[in-house]
Amino acid sequence: MTMGETSVGEFVLGIDFGGTKVALATASVTGDRLRGTRLPTRAADGAKEVVRRVLDAAHGLIAETPGRLVAAGVSTFGVIREGRVRLAPNVPGWDDLPLPALLRDGLGVPAVRVDNDVNAAAAAELRWGRLQGADVGLYVNFGTGTGAALVVGGRVVPGTHGAAGEIGYLLRDPAEPGYADGRAPLEEYTSGSGLAARGSALLGEQVTAEGLFARRDEPAVAALLDDAAAAIGMAVANLTTFLDPQRVVVGGGMAEAFLPAVRAAVDRAVPFPPPVEAARFVDDAALIGAVALGLQAT
Amino acid sequence: MTMGETSVGEFVLGIDFGGTKVALATASVTGDRLRGTRLPTRAADGAKEVVRRVLDAAHGLIAETPGRLVAAGVSTFGVIREGRVRLAPNVPGWDDLPLPALLRDGLGVPAVRVDNDVNAAAAAELRWGRLQGADVGLYVNFGTGTGAALVVGGRVVPGTHGAAGEIGYLLRDPAEPGYADGRAPLEEYTSGSGLAARGSALLGEQVTAEGLFARRDEPAVAALLDDAAAAIGMAVANLTTFLDPQRVVVGGGMAEAFLPAVRAAVDRAVPFPPPVEAARFVDDAALIGAVALGLQAT
Repeated sequence: MTMGETSVGEFVLGIDFGGTKVALATASVTGDRLRGTRLPTRAADGAKEVVRRVLDAAHGLIAETPGRLVAAGVSTFGVIREGRVRLAPNVPGWDDLPLPALLRDGLGVPAVRVDNDVNAAAAAELRWGRLQGADVGLYVNFGTGTGAALVVGGRVVPGTHGAAGEIGYLLRDPAEPGYADGRAPLEEYTSGSGLAARGSALLGEQVTAEGLFARRDEPAVAALLDDAAAAIGMAVANLTTFLDPQRVVVGGGMAEAFLPAVRAAVDRAVPFPPPVEAARFVDDAALIGAVALGLQAT
Repeated sequence: MTMGETSVGEFVLGIDFGGTKVALATASVTGDRLRGTRLPTRAADGAKEVVRRVLDAAHGLIAETPGRLVAAGVSTFGVIREGRVRLAPNVPGWDDLPLPALLRDGLGVPAVRVDNDVNAAAAAELRWGRLQGADVGLYVNFGTGTGAALVVGGRVVPGTHGAAGEIGYLLRDPAEPGYADGRAPLEEYTSGSGLAARGSALLGEQVTAEGLFARRDEPAVAALLDDAAAAIGMAVANLTTFLDPQRVVVGGGMAEAFLPAVRAAVDRAVPFPPPVEAARFVDDAALIGAVALGLQAT
């Protein structure tokens, strides 16, 4: 009986730090969503202020969730290396921030697991979505950014520096500038922000990636989107050949738009082409992934 | 005392099936080489005849090695899937051959481990060479063929169909023909046999890859080799970004020739560039790897 009472009353907290908003949710240890809230990131205020406001919101959420917090999972932009955020140059003070320790202290709970948003989304697909039961799997994310996660032995592989799957830095051509030149070739070519920048330059007016997809009857726009789809298709096909996964799962806001190109490239180029499927989670993928990370930490 | 006697008298057998020769060696369970032999493959005789002659040679070697055979490791071209050889179209009868079962029966030993030659070479680097202690590692092989092996959790990852690391099928360009068209784009562009074919077409005379490297003062030859090195550099840099390994190890007969290009590309394109090192084992890599596979099977 005591065991039952304890178990019912335990919950985990998930926090997803995004570029424009931070989302928080509590969930039972069986994964049922209990409470949620969100707030604007306001990155310009600086990392410390962002963390302070998020901890305030977290404490509010914890107070209104019945039971006891046992663990927290956190997804963030950048990558996590040795307890610090790396590769997040666009948020003042975020790069090199000891985010896991700050949250561990601020939440008063020792079990805190932090990973980047794409690895978190892959963790959600592993636990509840299209990668369930996969020993070897590939998750690719085409949204504001371009990223991937690889699964081996049923777990997301962090890599030596927490940077496995950072495919935004893939070269499309041997001669083009790369990371050491301050560039992210595949990301600049294919991400939502990259497409918006390239489309705006092409059309001579500000346009979003969404706006580009709405104008694909214009030949110049169609050519730009087809080029991006071809680059994405080749990248995913090559990673699939290398990893030989059971399944490839495509997530992110542009998943539907790029799925046909990815599937065609995989079928054409990979010796043993696996099924290529749309992710189960799209809108809240990183938040649900943060909850999954929290459950891993229990 | 009995234990000591038993242990000293146990040995493993390694067999490396190569395109032109088959090499065999016995080794103590601590990995010391005991006896060895080799014979021509004569692939044209057909798979059954090749296996029959190799089993004869193996029995001879087993008979002259003091002690008792406890396991065998085998490296072969192609890939191993569900107990059969796949992706080995060039040897009559080899594709779809149930090689593990044939050797298990023929050698009369239940512990037989079979893998492809590149994965075997990576197993040798993991046990005795440059990947010792690596949790996540990348081994790439530039020889007669172009291949790779990925290490995660200190083990070579076979992939879902035994085909992980088959980077000969990587696309260099989104539009070029791939596996489904009967092609192996990166292999045709960069392998020893691919370079020989391309060089012979370029020069209008038969030339080997070795011959090309000897003639790199000729501008057309230098351009061909530089292009191949650039394609290899980009491929390895991209796989390194994706996997985030602790080390990249370059093996195969052309390892020295391509090492500078690989190192430069990795340093330029990868967010956390790992050390890029020449493999410890070159000439006998697959045979030593077969012994390592045999030791894994004990």
